[in-house]
Amino acid sequence: MSLIIQKFGGSSVADSKRILNVANIIIKSYLEGNDTIVVVSAQGDTTDNFINMANEINPRASKRETDMLLSAGEQISISLLAMAIERLGYPVVSLLGWQAGFLTCATYGSARIEKINPDRIKKELDKKNIVIIAGFQGLNMYGDITTMGRGGSDTSAVALAAVMNADKCKIFTDVEGVFTADPRKVKNAKKLDVISYDEMLELSTLGAKVLNKRSVEVAKKHNVEVEVLSSMNDIPGTIIKEVTQKDKTPICGIAADENVARASVINVPDKPGIAFKLFSKLAGKGINVDIILQSENGENTKDISFTVPKTELEQTIEVLDKFIEPLEKAKIIYEKDVAKISIVGTGMENQVGIASKMFEALYEERINIQMIATSEIRVSVIVSSDEANRALNTIHNKFFGTKDILHNNEG
Amino acid sequence: MSLIIQKFGGSSVADSKRILNVANIIIKSYLEGNDTIVVVSAQGDTTDNFINMANEINPRASKRETDMLLSAGEQISISLLAMAIERLGYPVVSLLGWQAGFLTCATYGSARIEKINPDRIKKELDKKNIVIIAGFQGLNMYGDITTMGRGGSDTSAVALAAVMNADKCKIFTDVEGVFTADPRKVKNAKKLDVISYDEMLELSTLGAKVLNKRSVEVAKKHNVEVEVLSSMNDIPGTIIKEVTQKDKTPICGIAADENVARASVINVPDKPGIAFKLFSKLAGKGINVDIILQSENGENTKDISFTVPKTELEQTIEVLDKFIEPLEKAKIIYEKDVAKISIVGTGMENQVGIASKMFEALYEERINIQMIATSEIRVSVIVSSDEANRALNTIHNKFFGTKDILHNNEG
Repeated sequence: MSLIIQKFGGSSVADSKRILNVANIIIKSYLEGNDTIVVVSAQGDTTDNFINMANEINPRASKRETDMLLSAGEQISISLLAMAIERLGYPVVSLLGWQAGFLTCATYGSARIEKINPDRIKKELDKKNIVIIAGFQGLNMYGDITTMGRGGSDTSAVALAAVMNADKCKIFTDVEGVFTADPRKVKNAKKLDVISYDEMLELSTLGAKVLNKRSVEVAKKHNVEVEVLSSMNDIPGTIIKEVTQKDKTPICGIAADENVARASVINVPDKPGIAFKLFSKLAGKGINVDIILQSENGENTKDISFTVPKTELEQTIEVLDKFIEPLEKAKIIYEKDVAKISIVGTGMENQVGIASKMFEALYEERINIQMIATSEIRVSVIVSSDEANRALNTIHNKFFGTKDILHNNEG
Repeated sequence: MSLIIQKFGGSSVADSKRILNVANIIIKSYLEGNDTIVVVSAQGDTTDNFINMANEINPRASKRETDMLLSAGEQISISLLAMAIERLGYPVVSLLGWQAGFLTCATYGSARIEKINPDRIKKELDKKNIVIIAGFQGLNMYGDITTMGRGGSDTSAVALAAVMNADKCKIFTDVEGVFTADPRKVKNAKKLDVISYDEMLELSTLGAKVLNKRSVEVAKKHNVEVEVLSSMNDIPGTIIKEVTQKDKTPICGIAADENVARASVINVPDKPGIAFKLFSKLAGKGINVDIILQSENGENTKDISFTVPKTELEQTIEVLDKFIEPLEKAKIIYEKDVAKISIVGTGMENQVGIASKMFEALYEERINIQMIATSEIRVSVIVSSDEANRALNTIHNKFFGTKDILHNNEG
């Protein structure tokens, strides 16, 4: 007998029909003789609807009350899913985050799980109940409900798999697994059978929306084998696990992130501490700086360039305006319409030429590279937004096969 | 400084505008320097919507999962109301039933409050917070959420007022108080300034939907003074309290209950135990028998007549059919279209002629009385449904003034 944890996202339980579909998947696992734990998100648009209701009353509502409101979403989905399983004739019990023993830090809206006390869950499993648990939510030290931020249910499932020492953690979603690139953008993108934690982490960070990043970190830390698969088609998905040296691939996938903007401060004095001052001011405003490049320009001044999320560009420029006020020659340059294309692979560190192969692909298409950044398992380039799709496809073609540009909007 | 408990029903918090209206009522009490506790029901149609969602998935869902679903309703209303108070700039915290310390018996769907542990509430009042509490819900000994049945929020508020020794318990609703008769049916019905617990109990039982019956029982037991008033108009409502002997009124009000049917078994053998057998069978099916009459008809047989809720008549007849099977001469008679009209007053016991005055009013209108039942503070008659409104009005006129038939549908 195995212990299986299954997680279903909001789109998988969006209406009665889908809830009954999910109930059947769960019962199949239960009938195979497994201890069956299920983590569920709020139904489809529930969270957005709640946010709209709150905004109508108070657009600046406290995070505590927002968490109180939002956590009602999973309460609805777990009880409805339990009712569906009851209807099909199997023993089931639904548990809220606090009932399932999820204790978090005090931070409303983006709480981290600090501890899971699985006593109640174990008691229900001993009674042979299927256990349906509200993801995304927990209880803090004040006895208040907290939520973990978008995608938090993935983390609930993986953390629970770690604590319960589960045999499998299956994350059901609306895609069939992790692909070499976004299948909506690259037609011949291939589903991966296996991907390592580190690669998945890079892909999560880089904009592949399959799995919440925090959940991959938890999976890696506790060595939880996770399978991402579709709740609509009964076929194997992608397994995320520790990959041995010999199984490492040079490239596992290519990600495109459109929420990128580039900003530069040029002609700043070439003095120690200038970069520190700049980035500590940006950090103070909570701005997420990604790639940083610094170059000297030969006249006792230097240029500092970096990328930020497009949505934070306006705030970034405000900070930069203040920063250059006392600096005589300094100027700000920025570019809103850029994208970041990244290739990821744990095998990359053992193999030269990966980066140059990427650059070659871009050169062949005459796509200009604005910035380059590398890590041990990734190479990222910044290109113009209107060339992003062409860049993604030509690189994918270079590494994975036939060239196939799906969305050629470049004119 | 006083401690004031206010309770708002679902229609008072049905939308953003009404929620902000309620927030202002609450803040007014807070600014008068009171410790302010508020008990809230689920918004308008939330509960009905949830029941429809559940029915679509499983019309026979367990009561445990139904309570899990329904209790999300108050979670939504308390957080939205707290957000409204935040917006107006006052300190506030919302608490779920279990956070506010409401412990109930194990019965899902109609749980009774067993204990309230007000530690958290007191802590929040000490911090000068307005405390918004989810009514209708609590926690049972298994650590599961229970609900108290329709109108349960009234009971939450009154029980809390008892435990906290509150100075006032104000039940805000969509009517201005308790009337001598339903103002929708009797045009010149008058609002009462004061009514005793016993009278209110009789009226609650008899179909006046102002206050949940259980909440009146709790108020009487703990001598909590309750005021019923409108959340729309800022005028005094009706106070429910212990009334001294000299303040007792002969008649405080007249109630009409349309959910009544009459059933009779005639020609049953006149033997000991026959009534016991019949009513224990009905009780076994959970059928609520109200008025019971028994008469001998002179041939070693007797007739037993009684009333049940109209909605339980079909089931009643099934029981009666089985009951008379072995009885040779017995027959069943029933009448679906009847109504119960009752006059209620604590002063009645000291005054002769109240009942005869009622019968006189009916006689003057030539309305036939099918059954009569009396208690110390009430007289009820069963009349034909199509004469119910005329009966209500003529009796009201006899005791309270001008005759005024609003809905004369009797043709």
